[in-house]
Amino acid sequence: MSEFKWARKDLLGLRDLSKQEIELILDTAKSFQEVSDRSVKKVPALRGKTVTNLFFEPSTRTRVSFELAEKRLSADTIHIASSTSSMVKGETLKDSLRNIEALKVNIVVMRHPSSGAPHRMAPHFQASIINAGDGINEHPTQALLDMFTVREKKGKIDGMKVTFIGDILHSRVARSNIWGLTKMGAQVTVCGPKTLLPPSIEKLGVRATTDLREAVKDADVINLLRIQLERQKESYFPSIREYVTAYQINQEVLKLAKPDVVIMHPGPVNRGIEITSEVLDGPFSVILDQVTNGLAVRMAVLYLLAGTSQREEKVAE
Amino acid sequence: MSEFKWARKDLLGLRDLSKQEIELILDTAKSFQEVSDRSVKKVPALRGKTVTNLFFEPSTRTRVSFELAEKRLSADTIHIASSTSSMVKGETLKDSLRNIEALKVNIVVMRHPSSGAPHRMAPHFQASIINAGDGINEHPTQALLDMFTVREKKGKIDGMKVTFIGDILHSRVARSNIWGLTKMGAQVTVCGPKTLLPPSIEKLGVRATTDLREAVKDADVINLLRIQLERQKESYFPSIREYVTAYQINQEVLKLAKPDVVIMHPGPVNRGIEITSEVLDGPFSVILDQVTNGLAVRMAVLYLLAGTSQREEKVAE
Amino acid sequence: MSEFKWARKDLLGLRDLSKQEIELILDTAKSFQEVSDRSVKKVPALRGKTVTNLFFEPSTRTRVSFELAEKRLSADTIHIASSTSSMVKGETLKDSLRNIEALKVNIVVMRHPSSGAPHRMAPHFQASIINAGDGINEHPTQALLDMFTVREKKGKIDGMKVTFIGDILHSRVARSNIWGLTKMGAQVTVCGPKTLLPPSIEKLGVRATTDLREAVKDADVINLLRIQLERQKESYFPSIREYVTAYQINQEVLKLAKPDVVIMHPGPVNRGIEITSEVLDGPFSVILDQVTNGLAVRMAVLYLLAGTSQREEKVAE
Repeated sequence: MSEFKWARKDLLGLRDLSKQEIELILDTAKSFQEVSDRSVKKVPALRGKTVTNLFFEPSTRTRVSFELAEKRLSADTIHIASSTSSMVKGETLKDSLRNIEALKVNIVVMRHPSSGAPHRMAPHFQASIINAGDGINEHPTQALLDMFTVREKKGKIDGMKVTFIGDILHSRVARSNIWGLTKMGAQVTVCGPKTLLPPSIEKLGVRATTDLREAVKDADVINLLRIQLERQKESYFPSIREYVTAYQINQEVLKLAKPDVVIMHPGPVNRGIEITSEVLDGPFSVILDQVTNGLAVRMAVLYLLAGTSQREEKVAE
Repeated sequence: MSEFKWARKDLLGLRDLSKQEIELILDTAKSFQEVSDRSVKKVPALRGKTVTNLFFEPSTRTRVSFELAEKRLSADTIHIASSTSSMVKGETLKDSLRNIEALKVNIVVMRHPSSGAPHRMAPHFQASIINAGDGINEHPTQALLDMFTVREKKGKIDGMKVTFIGDILHSRVARSNIWGLTKMGAQVTVCGPKTLLPPSIEKLGVRATTDLREAVKDADVINLLRIQLERQKESYFPSIREYVTAYQINQEVLKLAKPDVVIMHPGPVNRGIEITSEVLDGPFSVILDQVTNGLAVRMAVLYLLAGTSQREEKVAE
Repeated sequence: MSEFKWARKDLLGLRDLSKQEIELILDTAKSFQEVSDRSVKKVPALRGKTVTNLFFEPSTRTRVSFELAEKRLSADTIHIASSTSSMVKGETLKDSLRNIEALKVNIVVMRHPSSGAPHRMAPHFQASIINAGDGINEHPTQALLDMFTVREKKGKIDGMKVTFIGDILHSRVARSNIWGLTKMGAQVTVCGPKTLLPPSIEKLGVRATTDLREAVKDADVINLLRIQLERQKESYFPSIREYVTAYQINQEVLKLAKPDVVIMHPGPVNRGIEITSEVLDGPFSVILDQVTNGLAVRMAVLYLLAGTSQREEKVAE
């Protein structure tokens, strides 16, 4: 493992991280991966630390993954959901966080509908902040688990052709992946209907195309984004049926990719829309490995941040 | 305690269990019962194991009993409620469970409105599945705690006259009890309005009657089912008032039963409907013992299943 | 620390407590305060004890503070919220508590919209009951943390001039503080619009006034109550704007108080209504210290009550 030491208080996004920092997280995750395969799935690394999961948007998948990572690290966890939270009503985000900070919490895992919210808050607090998704900006732990999975399945990230398909415009998952993958030397392509491709996305160092066949051709990795069916009423594309016709990944399209292509998806999957059930349940799909890896990556991030908490603490028991 | 060893991965219902298996659970529960009477109510039996409580129907009583059983066994617990769960929306049950499985969860406690759901899922997963109620089919831990209570109060189950009163048609509690009690040699009677008795219930080896006095006569145990007041609009019986007149257990009716009869109810009780407050709070009621015993029975089931998990795990710490 | 020993099973309100009992809680809290400053924020004091947080009113702030206090004492915790609780529907409060008691729970932290609910329940149960707010009656742990903060900032409570401003009529925080502070020798003033001052509040040994300047004059402590904006429709005062004009604490009004006055607020704060942002974020505000102290006070209360639980328990492991 790298001699490089983690120094940041927060994990806000992959935009800010260096290649070395990303590698340290992935290497640390690798060493945590076996904890969940043990008979006793628990290490005392964060015993007596407190982690607050502060979710201003509903989430089961990310919440459960973080909560389990925290518990397997022996942390004490508190969950605050904004929908049931009077802490949040009639109070600024900063005041909510000040209150959490006053409880001597070590790490706040925060999901917020507003892009940049955790970035604006982090400098004002001693507690470490982990961005668990901010608006359409970043979702760094998702991208890290995606990259961990690429490295695990392909042996490396450098030089890999990685294609994202779907709603690139609203996807914090795509955005974080682009920052991370390009730093690690991957060649990224984004593909979707013109209305769902951000106007000057190429400036981030990626190729953009509306043509699925072109996007999939020779891909090592295809990462499908979830179509938000609830966004349909805003008419970013004519109909689900047309989307399926033009962008669904099926057995036939897959033949254009590398013979050892892997298919990824952040979940939950709309079977029969982004992807056919055949491909989803087929040999190229590594979607469940992503879930498993997510746990290891989140344990790694929590572990690294716990070591750099700026909270002044007496070491004595 | 029996020399017999537990071998099943799942607890889906009492229909499948042998007499020996039921006895093993009840014996194991007996040995866990004293844990909750200790000053330190905690044993390390499931330390480092993860249990997910996956509830697709709201429940406080069963959820709290399982959660406490898990915590007193030192397991890590995760709760997922379908009403607040995006994991569940637009995703098949099988895909939700696949995701949970990918998190290396040992046991899934699952409540689902669809009869047979846990039975259909269990063969596809390494994690143990405990059925915490599936539609109108089974609720095995409730029946086991009822049987545990019968054995505790009466010294045996074999030969006991056990009468169920109420909505037999929609009761998974009655159904699980019937499977279990008949295997253990009890004589079961079910009683309720004709519209709430399943047509060919006698085929399960029980006596059915619409006459309360006949059902209660010489009973050792009377197990009252909860009248779902919200089901009233479907008109299974004319009115609550008529139900009360015909089927309520009061002091007078109770004189027909054995002098040492015990009264059971899975809760929550509608005071003054299924039962008068006098009887509920009187000497024959063992309803709160059922609650206490439920904890011990659930600890036993979790403990036995944790020992037969098919998850491949390294033993090394 | 005092030689005096805690003997009560419950903490229902400050009305019942003696000066000695209050002092014991505050002294015990002082010794718990440093736990949350440690690297390992956890002591084994309540290991193997079960605490149920039973909230019939939504609350994030108080719930999180209690939950964290319980976890830092190593207790097992169960949360039951009435809005999602079938345990509660169609069941009396006493029956709900009987069910919790049957699970061998040591302590129930209870919030209820009905004044006196915990007082009516406590004598019937072995489990300790902590009142976490009952209607408009009491909120003892809030008052204790307020008093802890006064003592910490001022060195003593005796002789201090403490002024409450706002909706005194509906404030359980004010009521508990009045009981506690007057016992400890403080001089309490309450101030607000006439419609929000209880008619014969002076009988409790406090001064009442509708004049903010009179109330603030020479105050050592100003404790602001939250204006419930949702209560506005009941027209206790003409408009928020008029309330702000007459009762908002700003820099100018503050000049009338002692030069070392401290400003307190139970939170969440409506910035720009009860208080200007300037004052809230200024040097006199100790609102976040209150949050920190609340954790220590709740740990102390949980710890003291755990030692006097009437539950009969075998001491053997």
